[in-house]
Parts: sequence; structure tokens; C-alpha cells
Amino acid sequence: MKTMNYHKYTAYPAVGIANRSWPDQTITKAPIWSSVDLRDGNQALPVPMNVDEKVAMFQLLVSVGFKEIEVGFPSASATEFAFVRRLIENGLIPDDVTIQVLTQAREHLIRKTFEAIKGARHAIVHLYNSTSRQQREQVFRMNKEEIKEIAVTGTALVRRLKEESGSAGIRFEYSPESFTGTELEYALEVCHAVMDAWGASAQDKIILNLPSTVEMSRPNIYADRIEWFCRNIKERDAVLISVHAHNDRGTAVATAEFAVMAGADRVEGALFGNGERCGNMDIVVMALNLFSQGVDPELDFSDLPRIREVYRKCTRMDIHARQPYAGELVYTAFSGSHQDAISKGMKAHKMSSDGIWDVPYLPIDPGDVGCSYEAIVRINSQSGKGGVAYVLEKDYGIQIPKWMQPDFAEAVQAVADRTGEELSPEEIHSLFHKEYVTLKEPFALKKCHISWDDEEPDRNDEEATIIACVVQMKEQEFRLDAVGNGPVDAFVKGFVAESGIEFSVEDYIEHAIGRSAGALAVAYVRIGCPDGRVSYGAGIDSNISLASIKAIVSALNRLP
Amino acid sequence: MKTMNYHKYTAYPAVGIANRSWPDQTITKAPIWSSVDLRDGNQALPVPMNVDEKVAMFQLLVSVGFKEIEVGFPSASATEFAFVRRLIENGLIPDDVTIQVLTQAREHLIRKTFEAIKGARHAIVHLYNSTSRQQREQVFRMNKEEIKEIAVTGTALVRRLKEESGSAGIRFEYSPESFTGTELEYALEVCHAVMDAWGASAQDKIILNLPSTVEMSRPNIYADRIEWFCRNIKERDAVLISVHAHNDRGTAVATAEFAVMAGADRVEGALFGNGERCGNMDIVVMALNLFSQGVDPELDFSDLPRIREVYRKCTRMDIHARQPYAGELVYTAFSGSHQDAISKGMKAHKMSSDGIWDVPYLPIDPGDVGCSYEAIVRINSQSGKGGVAYVLEKDYGIQIPKWMQPDFAEAVQAVADRTGEELSPEEIHSLFHKEYVTLKEPFALKKCHISWDDEEPDRNDEEATIIACVVQMKEQEFRLDAVGNGPVDAFVKGFVAESGIEFSVEDYIEHAIGRSAGALAVAYVRIGCPDGRVSYGAGIDSNISLASIKAIVSALNRLP
Repeated sequence: MKTMNYHKYTAYPAVGIANRSWPDQTITKAPIWSSVDLRDGNQALPVPMNVDEKVAMFQLLVSVGFKEIEVGFPSASATEFAFVRRLIENGLIPDDVTIQVLTQAREHLIRKTFEAIKGARHAIVHLYNSTSRQQREQVFRMNKEEIKEIAVTGTALVRRLKEESGSAGIRFEYSPESFTGTELEYALEVCHAVMDAWGASAQDKIILNLPSTVEMSRPNIYADRIEWFCRNIKERDAVLISVHAHNDRGTAVATAEFAVMAGADRVEGALFGNGERCGNMDIVVMALNLFSQGVDPELDFSDLPRIREVYRKCTRMDIHARQPYAGELVYTAFSGSHQDAISKGMKAHKMSSDGIWDVPYLPIDPGDVGCSYEAIVRINSQSGKGGVAYVLEKDYGIQIPKWMQPDFAEAVQAVADRTGEELSPEEIHSLFHKEYVTLKEPFALKKCHISWDDEEPDRNDEEATIIACVVQMKEQEFRLDAVGNGPVDAFVKGFVAESGIEFSVEDYIEHAIGRSAGALAVAYVRIGCPDGRVSYGAGIDSNISLASIKAIVSALNRLP
Repeated sequence: MKTMNYHKYTAYPAVGIANRSWPDQTITKAPIWSSVDLRDGNQALPVPMNVDEKVAMFQLLVSVGFKEIEVGFPSASATEFAFVRRLIENGLIPDDVTIQVLTQAREHLIRKTFEAIKGARHAIVHLYNSTSRQQREQVFRMNKEEIKEIAVTGTALVRRLKEESGSAGIRFEYSPESFTGTELEYALEVCHAVMDAWGASAQDKIILNLPSTVEMSRPNIYADRIEWFCRNIKERDAVLISVHAHNDRGTAVATAEFAVMAGADRVEGALFGNGERCGNMDIVVMALNLFSQGVDPELDFSDLPRIREVYRKCTRMDIHARQPYAGELVYTAFSGSHQDAISKGMKAHKMSSDGIWDVPYLPIDPGDVGCSYEAIVRINSQSGKGGVAYVLEKDYGIQIPKWMQPDFAEAVQAVADRTGEELSPEEIHSLFHKEYVTLKEPFALKKCHISWDDEEPDRNDEEATIIACVVQMKEQEFRLDAVGNGPVDAFVKGFVAESGIEFSVEDYIEHAIGRSAGALAVAYVRIGCPDGRVSYGAGIDSNISLASIKAIVSALNRLP
């Protein structure tokens, strides 16, 4: 093993914050959500969306309930400009939805941005310039004053163009881009200058968006920065603090959640974490995290399958099978103990009076997001008896009794071990038939007549059932006639008498599959022999008596 | 938009912890890593690994540097048992690697587990039982004492079997499974009882693993729990505190990081976050997060492509394109401003004296994990001039001068806007040729003879170059003969005289492509006309003079 060259990197600095309060906060109300699917998301696609796809995505976002949607950088490309115009000119923007447009703080781009939004009822003009030390030094070669001046000049121009446009529906957002690489005091200084340039007030709030453009630290440090910022900003009520987190360290969701605990009012993100590099903060995950804690997410993700489909079509991106809430494997349990616990938990949930979701291994009810329980259990060599039983009950109505589950689970595991593959419910079902129901060797029931003779009332009631069967054993057939207190009792007596095999029925249970008159019955038995041998059997028939007798024959055929 | 039924869920309780210290901690040393790829990872695969694939995965984990590797649940299936035996009997376990085997706290399973590890030099027997309220009530229907008794009885049996085996190399790990659903005080009580049953001491430490079996809260609350646990446990130095985080809320990495800050010594996880439902904590991400902060990850991820390949082959799982550090798009920048900043940052890095990585939009050097810069830049309608220039320089050695970059970027953007698709480096290169190099209309240089006449020393040196060319213009040809202080000067004079088109060369730069004797030269020019028209051109030839003249013809052909 080689030692990696870690000396090439340095630690992100801590924030000297006294008495931080965010770790004691919780979130009881959803933040203002802003979707950047059409901006950061689209920008990061190997094949960007065309105008039709953008319209489909926009309509999806509206249907999910977003009220602020960043629709692009219209001054940067003709496609984006055309898309914004189409939204406005075709009346595709609902009255309660605000479109947001990104622009660099450069005069010709700002002017073009105002051309793009002409006629929009509500729009947020989102101005940014990069303020980090890295970018000041390496990219712009400007000092702090010069970089601040870019922000102030841009803000003043947006303000003037807004006034000239006469549109009261235009709001303003400013991002000190690469905030995570910017000295906190300097970021605050720039934001204060921008607030002044706009004349921000409680009546005319501006959005200050503090991006984690590159995720450079653990989320707690970002939260410290947000708390510090909220504490130190002048006229806190003249601004909405917004966060925009990227996922380079795999912790964007935690970053955004902590930022809200630290005081942020607003969160930008994208569906399924689409966006540059490792993506933007995944709004589906953050919203459903809130949901799972009993907080109204103020977005509607009750039909994730539909949302996934539109997303995939528009972006051509995959959703990983393990993507929280949305991946195809996330409501699936493979291990036997998990399956057993889920099965019991779901039963308990059905019986519970308060309706509070409390099922092991399923943080939310898959049904709440349009996913189904069907996919929950798959069977492989790791699965235990509970899972196997769950599948048979769920998919086929076959309720193997608890005392028989280990026997069948062993059969399933033997197959799974041999093939090394998962068994489908169909395979499990057919294995059940092969192991129990369709056995014909060494014994096969050929004929069976059962009668309960109620015309001889002085006969002992306990011996009222008369059975007459023909059993084939290999090449031979034998006939048995017996009486008993029921068909099972009678059959056992007759069989023991004719075959000489001593056994008794130790457990027996039978139930119907389905509710119709033509429903089948399944019987399960455990038989035991005086020599200690035990065997399990099952039989299926529309006649409940025949099902029981078939179950006994099945167990006899499986005697070790 | 529908309101989701959030009333069905309740908030996870906070920990009443005073003066928490973890938010002030940082991580300066990697935790003890334990891989659960062969256990939790394998268990969650639609098609579990066969024995050969498990061996390949085991060897991969060893090569990465894991010293503790959970290899399965050998008492649960014949495949897992056979795999553990194969590792031991074939001598596949290096001396400094400890295998770890999971078992439920049930006698026959514990005994079978000891059969499985017979002959192993070092092994951790990992015992678990579920302790959560949910599982006590719904699944086991046992009270707290009874559940604790399961743990104690199991621990005592492991201790006895260890003593009987006489193997000093057997260590013990206990997990109160579903710790996140367990009351903290009760989890501590069970762990104390287990410590007593083992006789844990500073000389015979046991591992207490506190799983986030289901991720049920924000990571800060889990960290509070770990800090509380570390504070309240008796004989802190008799135990190693381990964490095992699942990713149901998309924050498993933050959870594990904070747990280490809160006092945990050891972290269990899986490559690329493989594992049940939303996966286990992704060890690649956590280790490289440490690396990116200048901490030795104590694992070797310097060849991620190889690790990805083995992983994909063994697990048949995808790695998402946006997976931090490992996804195929994470070292790719699409936006022009990002590309420009990366290009400048990389140049600055090459010049830097301290070697510290400090490149915008790339949290680590892709080369450090075996990924290459080649994939960094793709060009779409969002790309700016910097990115376009970067691609041409990187892939083709063509260094378009700064003053010409906007001209070419406009051409690229027009194509990208039209097609709505990304341009490959090949397409950009051929567009460069089409836009500048291969233009033949309206002017095409047919013949060109250049001489510098050094035999007439009294002639003015500034007019020492003689040029004689044939230029085709549509159907006609014209000849120009001129002198100048160099071929460019001579050609311009001659062309202006013959064609009547007034222009001058305002910028000119030329460089070689490649270093061999047969290298080509590329020349770039900007010409300006008295009427204000400006045009850019480029020419390529092995003769540097001809390249320049071709560049001028190119610019003339592109005059608006």
C-alpha cells in the first residue's frame, strides 16, 4: 500500500465563533426553495436540454410546487435566451411562480438579461461575481476593492434598469460566488456594499446567496460561517439569507440542513442532486428528510416515479439505485432479519391507532412517495425465513405457519447458495410447489372418498368420518378404509394400518387463498414418527379435506 | 400541488447534552477503518458475489490497505462459510489483516461462526442483537432485561469459545443493532453489561460499534449521541468506539465524520457506499475528504480507475457519474468561467513554490487518484472562451492568443446553440480548421516565393524581403510582387496594392506545434481596416513565413 501525497493539501480554517447555537436548533418549517435544475443542473449535462426539454422540466418543477425557479443564464447563450422568452411569451409561468435569471456582473450581460425577462410578471435577477482569494489572485488579478467594485457597479446597474423598466415584480439576488473560498469578513463587506448599492430594506429585501460553490469543509464549518454571517450582517431583516451547496465532499444535504439551522431562510438545489461535478444539493432528499421528521416539505414528492421519469428523459442522467428516497433499491430489504422485522412492523402499523409510521428499516412509507411495497423483499442466500414467508404471503396469499418457515427457508437457501443468485417471487412460489405440493413419490393419492355418516346417531361421534382411499406406492396400489373423528384422523389411522409406517400429526393449519367461492385451500402439516423423524408437508385443493390429506401425503413423501 | 401527509411522522428526539465539544474538533488522524463490503455490501446486491468474486473483492480491499475486513456472516449461509474457509485454508489473509465475522447472538450461530474461523491468525467475532424500542416491541416482544440478556449470554459464549479455542488472535465486537432507534441510556446499559460479560479492560479492549442502522436524524444529533456515549461509558480505555452509518438521509459521510470528532475511534463503511437500501457510509469519500484536508487517509486510493473496475465487476453495481471523487463527471467542468478559472489555476499551480493544491473548482488534483485532466473540459453552449482555448491547447497544442479567444468562442457557441449538444475536442479542433485554416474564399494563396536578398548591402535593410505570390480570387488570379521588412509586411503591402483593400495587421503571434524538426507552426493575426472592420485569421504551415501569410489570407477571407 502506497501512502498518498496528503502534504499537498491544507485544512480548511475553522470559524472563531463563540457560543454557536445551530447544533441546538431543529427545523420546523421548510425553507424557501429555489430550483436550479435549469441552470446548474442543465449546465452540467453532457447533452444539455433543448428548449422543449427545458419547458418539460419547468412544468415538472411547477407541478412539484417550486415558487422560485432559476431558468438560466440568458445572456450567455442564444438557447437560454430563447427559452426564457418562450416561457414569458407563451404564458407558461403561473402567477405565483417567480423565474430567476443568472448573470455575471458585466454591463452588456446585465442589459441582455433585462431584455430576456421583459414582460415577466415576477423575476429575480441573480447577479454574481467571484470573491474568493483564489479567484482574485489567480483568475482576475484584482484586489479586494476592485472585486467589491464589480459587485457594487453591477448591483447599481440592475437597480437602475429595474427602475427604468418600471416593473415592481423584479427582485434582486446577489451571490459572492466561491463564498466557501472567501474570507468571511470580506464576504460580509462585499454584501454590505451590495445592500447599500441596492438600498435594501425590510420592505425591499434582497436575497444574499452564500454558495458552497466548491464544498471545501465539513458541514459544521459551513454552518458556523452562516451563523457568523447572520449575526454580523447589518439590518438582518433587509435580507433573505440563501444557501447553494455543492456536493464535492458528499455532504451537501447536511450542509444545507445545518445552514438552515444556523439561520438561512432559503435553499437552492436541484432534483436528484443534478449539477456541476458532484452535483448540487439534492432538494428531493432535503425535502423528504424534513417530511420524515413530521415537517411539511412544502413540495409535493408523492409521485416520485413520475418525477424520475421526466427527469431522466430531460437530463439523460441516471438516478442511482441507492439514491435516498428515489433509488430503485432503497425500499428493498435483502437480509432475512430485516425482512422479518419489516413484515412484523407493517402488521403493527396496520393495527396502530395513531397511524404514526414506525416500521423497522423503512424510514418512510414507500407508498407516500408513490413507490410500492412489492419490491421490498427479494430473496437471496442472505434471506431468512421471515422474508421468504413474506414474499409468499404478499404475492401468493400463502401463509406458511411459523413452525414450518425454517423448513422451507432451508430449501430456498440451498437453491440460493447453489445458484448464487437472487430468487424471484415466482421462483420461490414454484419452489414451494416443487418441495411440497407436487410430490408423487413414494406415495401418490389416487382416489379419496370421505363421508360423515349422520344417519347412525348411536355411533360414537368421534368416529363419524369414514374415509376410503387408493394410494399408489411405486408400482403398487393399496386401498385404505378407516374411520376417525375427522378426515385427517381417519386418513392417518388408515394409512398407518395399511403401510405400517407409524406417525402422528403434530401440527396442522389450513387457510383459504382468496375469498371467492372457488377459492383454494392450503393445508400445512408437521408429522412426527416414534423414532424422532419429523417432516413437513403442504397440500392445495378446493376441497379443504382433500387439501389436508394431500398435506399429509406430502409430509410422508418428505420423510427423511 | 398536493400537501404530503407529514403528520404521519415524528421528529427524532434531541440529546440533552451540555457543552458539546465535537463542533470545535477537527480530524487530524484517520480512524481505524473497517470494510463491510463483503458483508453489508454483498448482502445488498441483487446478485450476490460468488466465492471467486468475493476473493477478488477481498484482495482489492487488502491492496487498498484495509487492516480489518468483515468477510461475512458464515453461520447464515453455506456460501459465506465456504468463503471464510477458503480465505483461511488458502492462506489468502496477510499477517497484518484481521478478518471480521458477523453473528447473531444465538448459540448455534455463534458455534458455527467459531467453526468458520478455525485456523485464522486474527479474527474479530462481531456479535449483534437489536436493541431498539421498535424491534423490542414489534419484532421480539421482549422487555429491556430480556434483550440485554441476549447480548450478555451471547458475549459469554463467545468468551468461552475463545478460551476453548486457545486462540489469542480472536477479538470481540458488539453492536447494539438499531442503535439509532435505541434509548441512549439503555444502549449504554447493554454495552456496560457486555463489557462486564467479556471482562473488557485496557489490555483486552472490545469494540463497541454503535450503528446508524437506519439513518434517522441529522448527523449532529448522532454526533451528540456519540459524545454523550463516550462521556458516560465506564472505563473508556477498555473499549474502541466504532460507528457504522447508513445513508437513508443522504448524510452518512457527515454522520461518520462528526462521530469521529465526537470521539469515535473506528469507522465501518464500504467502497462507493455499497450496502442495504441507500448504502453504507462511503469510505472512499470519507478517506479522500481527510486527504483533501492534508490528513493521511491511511488507505490508498491513488488508482481509483482500477478500484472502480474491480468493484463494478464483483458487485455489478454502477458508480454514479456524480459520485464524489470517483464519478466520471466529477473532474469535468462545463461552464466557461469554471474552465477559464481551472486553466489559470493549473498554470498557477505549476509555477507555485509550495506545491499546495489550490485550483478553483477542483477540490483535489485528479491525478492524485489516477484520473486525468483530459476529461476536465467539455464544451457546450455554456462554455466560454477559456474552456475552448484550454481544450485546443491541451489536446492539440494550439494556443489561441487571448485577443483571439472571444472570436473563436463565438463560433463554438453558435454551433453548440444550434445543435444543443456538447462539442468534443475533435469537433472543436475541426471547427477551428473550418473557421480559419481551410478557408479558400474569396482569396486563396496559390503560389508564394519569399526571398531575403543579402547580396545588395546598400539596399535599405527594412525592405530586404521580397515576396512574389499568386492569389486566386473567385475565377480570377492576380500576382503580387512586393518588398518589406519581413514576409508579413511585404505580403500586406503587395496585397493592398493589388487588391485595393486597405488593412493593417494589428496583432500577430506564432508558435510551433510539437518540438520535432518537422513541427508545424501556427500563426494568428488580427487585421483592422480604416472603416473599423476587424477580422481574425489563423494559418498553419511547416514554413513559419507561409503560416503567417496564410493567417492573413484567412483573416481577409473572414472580413465582415
